[in-house]
Amino acid sequence: MTTLPETMRAVVAVRPGGPEVLAIETRPLPSPKAGEILIRVEAAGVNRPDVLQRMGMYAPPPGASDVLGLEAAGVVVARGDGASRWDIGAQVTALVPGGGYADYCVVHESNALPIPAGLGTVEAGAIPETFFTVWTNVFDRGALKAGETFLVHGGTSGIGTTAIQLAKAFGATVIATAGSAEKVGECLRLGADVGINYRSEDFVARTLAATGGKGANVILDMVGGDYVARNYAAAAVDGRIVQIAFLRGPKAQIDLMPLMMKRLVHTGSTLRPRPPSEKATIAEALLTKVWPLIEAGRCKPVIDSVFSLADAGLAHARMDGGAHVGKIVLTP
Amino acid sequence: MTTLPETMRAVVAVRPGGPEVLAIETRPLPSPKAGEILIRVEAAGVNRPDVLQRMGMYAPPPGASDVLGLEAAGVVVARGDGASRWDIGAQVTALVPGGGYADYCVVHESNALPIPAGLGTVEAGAIPETFFTVWTNVFDRGALKAGETFLVHGGTSGIGTTAIQLAKAFGATVIATAGSAEKVGECLRLGADVGINYRSEDFVARTLAATGGKGANVILDMVGGDYVARNYAAAAVDGRIVQIAFLRGPKAQIDLMPLMMKRLVHTGSTLRPRPPSEKATIAEALLTKVWPLIEAGRCKPVIDSVFSLADAGLAHARMDGGAHVGKIVLTP
Repeated sequence: MTTLPETMRAVVAVRPGGPEVLAIETRPLPSPKAGEILIRVEAAGVNRPDVLQRMGMYAPPPGASDVLGLEAAGVVVARGDGASRWDIGAQVTALVPGGGYADYCVVHESNALPIPAGLGTVEAGAIPETFFTVWTNVFDRGALKAGETFLVHGGTSGIGTTAIQLAKAFGATVIATAGSAEKVGECLRLGADVGINYRSEDFVARTLAATGGKGANVILDMVGGDYVARNYAAAAVDGRIVQIAFLRGPKAQIDLMPLMMKRLVHTGSTLRPRPPSEKATIAEALLTKVWPLIEAGRCKPVIDSVFSLADAGLAHARMDGGAHVGKIVLTP
Repeated sequence: MTTLPETMRAVVAVRPGGPEVLAIETRPLPSPKAGEILIRVEAAGVNRPDVLQRMGMYAPPPGASDVLGLEAAGVVVARGDGASRWDIGAQVTALVPGGGYADYCVVHESNALPIPAGLGTVEAGAIPETFFTVWTNVFDRGALKAGETFLVHGGTSGIGTTAIQLAKAFGATVIATAGSAEKVGECLRLGADVGINYRSEDFVARTLAATGGKGANVILDMVGGDYVARNYAAAAVDGRIVQIAFLRGPKAQIDLMPLMMKRLVHTGSTLRPRPPSEKATIAEALLTKVWPLIEAGRCKPVIDSVFSLADAGLAHARMDGGAHVGKIVLTP
């Protein structure tokens, strides 16, 4: 059995601000509590909520680490009381409530999954946040079914690239928006049936045209603001609109008449504050329904770039810049 | 077999306006098409959408009569091709897409139900619109379950009195708002656990206090406007808010952050434009799950007042005045 160090490197935001506020600190190794495992991190995905946390706009939930990072892949090196699901040495990838940007992190054993066969740790570490988010919002909450039309905004983001592939794999017609012709091309390469450049085209008109006037059955939105009314206009009768963020803000002047007349369902969720037991339910669904698709090569995380832990600021600067396609990953 | 007349009396709005625009016209007897029945109307309920239609703000859906009235009870006097569910002479009460304020009206046979044992035609004619609406919105769409807390606005309206009784009968804790101490008393007599005078009390604070800070699991709203944000504040985590009208208008400045953070479901529906097949599904559920409750005396339509067909204007004036408790009914 390997001896564990007493301290580790961890990335925190020393104050709210731009990528320059990220710094490596030396922290004590976290200790796995009952039911938890300690992972030696080999890859930690960077996600939009990390940027909000860095800016001071998204505080960690009570009890979560102030160290950034919502997902990590690596090796199980210790187990808390009663944790028996994973052997020491097992390779896992996990959705963590915080603390991923570090040499080690702890997570409830039920929120970890085996690294899919055929994937490296970088790819594996880029899976949990977007796959958990897309599954629970698009398939559970949005109840997307085969044969339906799915509209996702931000098609080349980590969420977007995951959503396009999963929706397509489960038999939906996929429409994706993105901010340039090149990004639209990436959406189409990932399997989208229709790609819309939101800077030069009206996504409502394009969505209606692509669906014979019917509209999209499920819309995954992280934009908010003026998109709320436009999503209502682009949605089909009995359509479901699932809100996972508000890049243009959560406040909007909204006419709810279409919500009632078209019997829309407007809902949303965030993943991080939910208890491990609810995340475990999502993990079970992913293991059963999505892991086989990944292992068969039918979908996979799209990796934009890889940075060292010491370069977390550069990684955030790349996400802030918006030129990335897919996931940015840190490797300790 | 009774010989049917060639013409009948029917109430229409001769132009958009107040109750004074309602007039009785002589119309040809409607003829039941395939699958339809002709009902000799003995009682026709008055509903809020009739008022909106009178004011020119709610056009009948394509194919529906311009004669007012969304529900009627009476006797089956003729059947269209293939209509076999009801014998001539059967006593029924039906949800009709229009035409209830008349001596006769037609409806698809699947949208009629037997008059519950023990009820007269006046009470029976006051059932369909509110019971169909409450069932499909509170139990289907809102998925209210026993043990949950249900908040209904307008507790003494036709919808409100129905919703209080049904939610209570199915095991929910019921909170109702109303506009006076007397109306709050009526809500409590109908079974509400908590009554809130919305003119003098804050329904958000009262709802949170009544639920230990948790909020209501399902909210049935016909108010809109500033109530939208307040409903979000009064809703529990995973709460469902179902919009069936907008007495204060459908437009509002809304902060959607609580919708996402509390994983709310905001939805709504209207009944009238839906095809007979969808209304038939609701009718089946009512027959199985609600008719036994009515026949056991556990819930019943609350009758405010009865007017003759010729006094439809007076009936509408009473609804416009807002002093009514329960249903206003016309008897041809």
